[in-house]
Amino acid sequence: MNVTVKGRARHYRTVAFDARENSVLLIEQRLLPHQFKIVAMPDFRATARAIREMIVRGAGAIGAAAAYGLAQGARAFRGNDLHEFSTRIELVQQTLKAARPTAVDPVNAMNAVRAAMRAGATVREQQALALAAAGEFADDDVRHCQAIGRHGEKLIRPNSRILTHCNAGWLAFVDVGTATAPLYAAQKAGKKFHVYCDETRPRCQGATLTAWELAQQKISHQVIADNAAGHLMQRGGIDLVIVGSDRILGRTGEVANKIGTYTKAVLARRHGIPFYVAIPLSTIDWNLRSGLEIPIEERSGNEVLGAWGAMPGAGGKSPGIYVRIANPTSGALNPGFDVTPPELITGIITPEGIFQPDQLWKNRERLGWIRNSAVKNGACARRN
Amino acid sequence: MNVTVKGRARHYRTVAFDARENSVLLIEQRLLPHQFKIVAMPDFRATARAIREMIVRGAGAIGAAAAYGLAQGARAFRGNDLHEFSTRIELVQQTLKAARPTAVDPVNAMNAVRAAMRAGATVREQQALALAAAGEFADDDVRHCQAIGRHGEKLIRPNSRILTHCNAGWLAFVDVGTATAPLYAAQKAGKKFHVYCDETRPRCQGATLTAWELAQQKISHQVIADNAAGHLMQRGGIDLVIVGSDRILGRTGEVANKIGTYTKAVLARRHGIPFYVAIPLSTIDWNLRSGLEIPIEERSGNEVLGAWGAMPGAGGKSPGIYVRIANPTSGALNPGFDVTPPELITGIITPEGIFQPDQLWKNRERLGWIRNSAVKNGACARRN
Repeated sequence: MNVTVKGRARHYRTVAFDARENSVLLIEQRLLPHQFKIVAMPDFRATARAIREMIVRGAGAIGAAAAYGLAQGARAFRGNDLHEFSTRIELVQQTLKAARPTAVDPVNAMNAVRAAMRAGATVREQQALALAAAGEFADDDVRHCQAIGRHGEKLIRPNSRILTHCNAGWLAFVDVGTATAPLYAAQKAGKKFHVYCDETRPRCQGATLTAWELAQQKISHQVIADNAAGHLMQRGGIDLVIVGSDRILGRTGEVANKIGTYTKAVLARRHGIPFYVAIPLSTIDWNLRSGLEIPIEERSGNEVLGAWGAMPGAGGKSPGIYVRIANPTSGALNPGFDVTPPELITGIITPEGIFQPDQLWKNRERLGWIRNSAVKNGACARRN
Repeated sequence: MNVTVKGRARHYRTVAFDARENSVLLIEQRLLPHQFKIVAMPDFRATARAIREMIVRGAGAIGAAAAYGLAQGARAFRGNDLHEFSTRIELVQQTLKAARPTAVDPVNAMNAVRAAMRAGATVREQQALALAAAGEFADDDVRHCQAIGRHGEKLIRPNSRILTHCNAGWLAFVDVGTATAPLYAAQKAGKKFHVYCDETRPRCQGATLTAWELAQQKISHQVIADNAAGHLMQRGGIDLVIVGSDRILGRTGEVANKIGTYTKAVLARRHGIPFYVAIPLSTIDWNLRSGLEIPIEERSGNEVLGAWGAMPGAGGKSPGIYVRIANPTSGALNPGFDVTPPELITGIITPEGIFQPDQLWKNRERLGWIRNSAVKNGACARRN
């Protein structure tokens, strides 16, 4: 999407590749929203480190970073011995996989790259195929998000007031995003609307990342405390809710997403407000039979007991200072995700169209059931 | 309640009076939870400043501070001329009232002090009566909170897990508090239980004040993000909700309280969890006929866009640093309160017993209807 740097708007992807330098280009997301910076990863180990240290985060984005990282490692190989090359590729893949061991997207992305490489008869050919396949993965990610935008855009009426939670934006994918895709498509279609970004404590991805994205795209928006949405709904101030998801159960329609999503779905139902979840197909888990089987990550209490921010006036110079908000002798409980039952969900916006949650299983062949049937048994992947 | 300073637990009130020094003694609440400090206000102007600058906050606490401040101003008068004395008292009262112009408790408290003074025939007598009446107001506040505790304690079963929102604790009153009163009473009765404190963004009074209170009283507790309560309820982790209120409509049973209260009530209802509101009688508004008439204060967006905290390691040396969390080019919407409808409220815990919200009007004579009938038309007073 567009980012304005020194007064000029320019298009960026979250993850890109510089073929001449054999570098993976990433937005340094840990500096956002206070500073925008592109960093170049010169080799696959640096790319793995960037995934591990969350310079890049978000399902689609780390998938693309791993795919490019694999191509990068392949292209750095000097020599013609296919056996040596294959040993090298194995090391590269394991290194990149180990950077976020519970995430499924890097695994799927790298498997796709390796499958494409098999058509090459020489090291050179396989190197070229690897880069092409990584680029294809990234382009697919963008196309899927654009398709989500086309379907979801129809839900946005003139002057709609839309609530979103956490960040399922373009920073979490290669471009466009999922929950944000309908917003960007509606803007392109000339519609006027207003977005409320739940700040999304404890990590505040709504206040930091989503608000930054919308500000860059010049979409009318305001940050609200997570406590405020119920009041706004009660007074008729919200027309539509769109969120992303970390995992949707294809068999039941249950939606795992950032903590607080369930609360917003309960409130939306009480007030008759449509509640939509926007996802790529890779988010659908076809194996689990109950939301209770989804392990909910317990995260560090320090996230709840404090916050990261910038000193005012320091501009982009001092992002990421941690301050302790809570009483210093108190502890915290910090579940990272919750599960929203299907009866609270109006529809699931996918690249293939909008489905009611109980219609996923019936449409499973269209929704990638076979391709994904063997994965997604890990813990709920941490998006950010 | 007890506060442990340098390893020794000692009993403090939020507001007290040093008759020898003619000083109002206050807990410097702006330093909490990072530092505990008692400050002495040497004259009524300093006491007014302390109310205005929120060294002391909370309905009962500012009522008592104003009552003591009035007695303080009266006692500082030198001379025997009753007319001059009366002029002076008028100035003192206006100064203290202007410190928090929308708050009703200081007005009621000072009216009670002035009424008591009328029985005195001389300046000396009136000065003595003023101090006695201020002390009586403070003691009444404590007795009412203790009565709330006695009634509310019965709701707490062994091993109950209790959710509270914001701070309706002893720091907001002279002692004991309202929503916290049943907790302290249950602890005294030897019951074991666990409290979840909603952090209560944006000002985080749950994470700072309530958590500090419970830690001082050695009550088992954890801070949670406001987003987490729905998930905990869904998994059967919460048995009871007790909150305070800024204003309850005696005619309808509607409850105005800190933003986010309504959301918790909606969630509690969905999960069949009892939801109680603990209040002194002065919180009941007998005039308004609909919750929609309650003006909801829109507060500064900076509260949502950042947070106040201490640098870790600095101990109590650096409380109150403000950091900007959100995207610097985004704005915020910050309603300070919301209104919970009576059908979501299991009961109102008052010093007179527990009432269903629709039973307040029927019991109005017992609940102070006449005494309060002419006040409470201002905006929802900011408790903190």
